[in-house]
Amino acid sequence: MTRELQFYTNPQSRGNIVHWMLEELGQPYTTHVLHYENTMKAPEYLAINPMGKVPAIRHGDVVVTEAAAICAYLADAFPDAGLAPANRGEYYRWLFFAAACGEPAMSDHATGWDANTPELQKRFGYGSFEQTFEVMADWLSDRTYVAGDQFSAADVYVASLLNFGILFDLIPRKPAFEAYLTPLLARPAKQRAEEKILQLMAAEANLAG
Amino acid sequence: MTRELQFYTNPQSRGNIVHWMLEELGQPYTTHVLHYENTMKAPEYLAINPMGKVPAIRHGDVVVTEAAAICAYLADAFPDAGLAPANRGEYYRWLFFAAACGEPAMSDHATGWDANTPELQKRFGYGSFEQTFEVMADWLSDRTYVAGDQFSAADVYVASLLNFGILFDLIPRKPAFEAYLTPLLARPAKQRAEEKILQLMAAEANLAG
Ligand SMILES: N[C@@H](CCC(=O)N[C@@H](CS)C(=O)NCC(=O)O)C(=O)O
Ligand SMILES: N[C@@H](CCC(=O)N[C@@H](CS)C(=O)NCC(=O)O)C(=O)O
Repeated sequence: MTRELQFYTNPQSRGNIVHWMLEELGQPYTTHVLHYENTMKAPEYLAINPMGKVPAIRHGDVVVTEAAAICAYLADAFPDAGLAPANRGEYYRWLFFAAACGEPAMSDHATGWDANTPELQKRFGYGSFEQTFEVMADWLSDRTYVAGDQFSAADVYVASLLNFGILFDLIPRKPAFEAYLTPLLARPAKQRAEEKILQLMAAEANLAG
Repeated sequence: MTRELQFYTNPQSRGNIVHWMLEELGQPYTTHVLHYENTMKAPEYLAINPMGKVPAIRHGDVVVTEAAAICAYLADAFPDAGLAPANRGEYYRWLFFAAACGEPAMSDHATGWDANTPELQKRFGYGSFEQTFEVMADWLSDRTYVAGDQFSAADVYVASLLNFGILFDLIPRKPAFEAYLTPLLARPAKQRAEEKILQLMAAEANLAG
């Protein structure tokens, strides 16, 4: 079985987080586009991700699902790319904060569920929607990168989440987010990923039309 | 500054996940009990975790928050304990799945929010409450450990989440969970953690009384 990376995605999905990560990595990979209404729920793909969701990757016989887990895995699997910083404390802290607090806070809020009593905020892992994004903005306000002083897989995940949230008006448009995002979104690997995503979308449109 | 581990917790909190992890590690640590209504929101502690939540750890000048991040950090910081498996794909996959899908699914469901339309389930990172725990049960049904064939920090987190969910009747009581949990909860380190947690609770009760 080839060790080449197999990437399962849809150009309109959280797969785009991993697409950026793969471009930062600079390793060859094969992209498989799954469709929401059929191939994503077909037995072949459910054997890879029983959630029937993208993204997922296969690397030899290792399957990884969950966008944040894939970022962390790839950073460790290809250490030469320098995407896992020495300070793993901050790195894990913000990777998990973004995936397990930022993302659920955004999804809950966008769909009308707010932990809006002190009792709920005490129990909820993210406290409240407002607090979660305030704490992230404060942390980023005097930093170029989310963990330590180098770009890492945590930035790929955190910047993707914040960028998505801002584009779709799901989170507050804080100055600290914009200052953090601007240079990261301009990175060549992010630009290459965007181009490839547009190409995938165009191919989809052709298929549909 | 001492490199000794400083552990910030409350005996009735997710800090108990980290307490177990620390006992598995076998390194010295100092426990600081924070109280919900005062010290957890005091400036000294907000400087450690601006969320005003436990758990957190300090290790030298590294601060880590988020129970799952702390487990991952400690496993890497003390490799001799063997709590980070070689197969980091499964390890990260299930650590993130538990923290970013299992935990929010449980919290949302417990407080009356269910992604109960196909559109919501497609968007929500955890799909639905039922699917999330079904997928975890299927994965665990033929495994002793959640990642590879050795006990790891991912087991500390996953088993803590499932055990909490079952104790408080927040998740389905699936046979695969009980089979997975029984030997893990019997581990000496888990037993030691439980004892220390009971001692902390007793000390709290004395203070209050
Ligand atoms: N927790 C997962 C969430 C993945 C997810 O929800 N993906 C969506 C697209 S962004 C999906 O595939 N939905 C299809 C479905 O649930 O049917 C992650 O972070 O990777
Ligand atoms: N996402 C955090 C959640 C931590 C959390 O919510 N802790 C609760 C206790 S279990 C807390 O400290 N609540 C106090 C408060 O929010 O005021 C983690 O996984 O560590």
